[in-house]
Amino acid sequence: MNPVEIIKAKKNNKSLRKEEIQYFINGYLNGEVADYQMSAFLMAVCFNGMSDEETFYLTETMLKSGRTVDLSHIKFPKVDKHSTGGVGDKTSLILAPLVASCEIAVPMISGRGLGHTGGTLDKLESIRGFNFNLSVEEYIRIIDKNNLVMSGQTDELCPADKKIYALRDVTSTIDNTSLITASIMSKKLAEGADSIVFDVKVGTGANLGDYDKCMELSGKLLSIAKKFNKKAIAILTDMNIPLGKKIGNWFEVEECIEVMNGADIPDLLKVNNILAGAMIYLAGKTDSIESGENIAMEKIRNGSAYNKFLETVEIQNGDVNYIMDFLHYKRPEYTYSFNATQDGFITKMDALNIGLASVELGAGRKRYTDVIDPLAGIIFKKVFGDRIMKDDIICELYSSSPQKISEAVKYIREAIEISPIEMPKRKLIIDIIK
Amino acid sequence: MNPVEIIKAKKNNKSLRKEEIQYFINGYLNGEVADYQMSAFLMAVCFNGMSDEETFYLTETMLKSGRTVDLSHIKFPKVDKHSTGGVGDKTSLILAPLVASCEIAVPMISGRGLGHTGGTLDKLESIRGFNFNLSVEEYIRIIDKNNLVMSGQTDELCPADKKIYALRDVTSTIDNTSLITASIMSKKLAEGADSIVFDVKVGTGANLGDYDKCMELSGKLLSIAKKFNKKAIAILTDMNIPLGKKIGNWFEVEECIEVMNGADIPDLLKVNNILAGAMIYLAGKTDSIESGENIAMEKIRNGSAYNKFLETVEIQNGDVNYIMDFLHYKRPEYTYSFNATQDGFITKMDALNIGLASVELGAGRKRYTDVIDPLAGIIFKKVFGDRIMKDDIICELYSSSPQKISEAVKYIREAIEISPIEMPKRKLIIDIIK
Repeated sequence: MNPVEIIKAKKNNKSLRKEEIQYFINGYLNGEVADYQMSAFLMAVCFNGMSDEETFYLTETMLKSGRTVDLSHIKFPKVDKHSTGGVGDKTSLILAPLVASCEIAVPMISGRGLGHTGGTLDKLESIRGFNFNLSVEEYIRIIDKNNLVMSGQTDELCPADKKIYALRDVTSTIDNTSLITASIMSKKLAEGADSIVFDVKVGTGANLGDYDKCMELSGKLLSIAKKFNKKAIAILTDMNIPLGKKIGNWFEVEECIEVMNGADIPDLLKVNNILAGAMIYLAGKTDSIESGENIAMEKIRNGSAYNKFLETVEIQNGDVNYIMDFLHYKRPEYTYSFNATQDGFITKMDALNIGLASVELGAGRKRYTDVIDPLAGIIFKKVFGDRIMKDDIICELYSSSPQKISEAVKYIREAIEISPIEMPKRKLIIDIIK
Repeated sequence: MNPVEIIKAKKNNKSLRKEEIQYFINGYLNGEVADYQMSAFLMAVCFNGMSDEETFYLTETMLKSGRTVDLSHIKFPKVDKHSTGGVGDKTSLILAPLVASCEIAVPMISGRGLGHTGGTLDKLESIRGFNFNLSVEEYIRIIDKNNLVMSGQTDELCPADKKIYALRDVTSTIDNTSLITASIMSKKLAEGADSIVFDVKVGTGANLGDYDKCMELSGKLLSIAKKFNKKAIAILTDMNIPLGKKIGNWFEVEECIEVMNGADIPDLLKVNNILAGAMIYLAGKTDSIESGENIAMEKIRNGSAYNKFLETVEIQNGDVNYIMDFLHYKRPEYTYSFNATQDGFITKMDALNIGLASVELGAGRKRYTDVIDPLAGIIFKKVFGDRIMKDDIICELYSSSPQKISEAVKYIREAIEISPIEMPKRKLIIDIIK
């Protein structure tokens, strides 16, 4: 087979055969297909798409490019959650220990943040000592003992995905739903879960903001999951506004600790609980997502979620004292209060611009090689819909440099709108697709 | 500027600004833009196209990426011809010396063949000793003295085009008319001609076979030529059937020598003369292409074209004895006669399959690194429209290996059709666009 002919076929909107997809992906791993050929191919896919069959073969080939974790010896159901990425999206840190405290195993492999969206690994990294660079053997040992493991992607799992993902990022070929599906599903299938809940973010702060595209992605994720005999639910949630009141890596860990200790952050709790509820439901512990949600709330109230969180930090070498004493953890050197310029209601709190502000502060990356400041971030004192008075603090920005703060303020100014007329409440849970 | 943002803009069908095009092309030359980013960009251009303005800036940037030859000291008008490539397309070897014998300077930079189409350089290379690897200084010295220079593309002219062209070839991003226009025009503008005649090939054996695409390309070529104050004419000629009776590098040189010595090959002469006529007309030597054609015919008849050809071979270090004695030049070791299986008329002689057959024989390349056999090729004894009897020889295949011949025969079988009903004559000259 010839790489140029395969690129040409996709460019001419032909469906690729299984063997062609296998040749192209495996060829990329072994060097027969050059990176400039892969990127031309990916761009052609962005224009012409892939059929469900092609997406299946792509997923399968990427899955088989590495090892697969076998968790069949674990007697509990094994459920994971995956989010397509948003701003302030920290639910993994709450729902993973929560669900793991329900006699459900949670094998979770996460990624780093890029652009305006955050990543679970960066948040975990802000916990002193926390180790997520696990071999497959350590990964299995931890989930066996703890019911939960929070890991980075090892080189052994889906190496083809890892190599292709890095290329997509620098060639503007991120937003095709088949490529996204194959990337997500190959990893999820490799990690050993039986069931998966997808949090598909919709809105300005999401990676794939458009509702129709999110529906298309959800359909593909569920269809591929089904073909691999995995149970799955996709929940479309709003990401026009950040989730919760804190943004930044350590800030988000903090907010999760607060929530697991009883703090009431309604939007964060709602999204967390419905995702956890869906996981509990898929695990067969309840007969509906709603009763799963009730269990989730109870597990937070009775401290089970928080205890499992502490156990997980401990088993993955994190410093538990550091978590217990979280309020005394130092803040960045520079801070800035962003105040209301008039009386009214907060009618806009744009997640994209707030995400970009947090990147400027040092909480995120523009390039994969950028180094993150785990302490930088934003704390909101007021949220969408709140009534405020002139000079009220809307949010506080934290950074290690005043220049970074002044860059971030420009984005915050774009993000916030105050108006005399109250806006209708946002619809947080947009769709549930089984 | 950021390469990813520029790729994204083109992917989202936005027009690029002059500065963005300059940054991206120059960045590719100096390493700021990676080859995998360029190939993703090229693929996006294949889908979304480029406006006339973008095509102009692309051409200008590629032109300015290297040196420009200044031929303003030459008192004669300076005219070149460019063909978009076909099978048996050997007119350059006849019309260039022909036009140069009319007090017109012909600065000609040619390329190598790829895929099923041939290239002038490969044909010239089959002439013992012929040197077309010229520095700009040698190039100017030769045209000053000889009125004609036949050169390969030096590294000094349009290095951006050279680098991008090599990438397009291996990423299936050849067939966009803006990319083709910028590639052709940047080279033509760099070589120093005042006027250019384009031979735009239409049909199965052309690189861009579709009539509408050829019209689009012709329009862009003329529009860019005009913007750079060059006179230009595009002539669309048929390439469903090979041009002339001989295909292969030395075979085609042979056929040109024969034609310049009076052989009557009607289709080759017609295309050659109209292109030469258009060059003579653009040079201001006549008031119509038709009168230019008459001059062309006369220059062949009176030996001027052939004499200039011999002078050019000599000044570029080719062995003239070898040309004079061309019929004694050895043939390849293996030969095969492809005979008619029935009585009738030749109603199909598909240029694409015949081109592919010649590649199999060793006359062409599948990859740039393939080595050509200058002697391999095909000689047609019968042509399209001829009446033939069963067992008549249609063509003879020549190669250094019987395996290559048997591969080639498969393509010839696909190419030729014999039918009891005569087909109408082909329209050789499809359109003339000024």
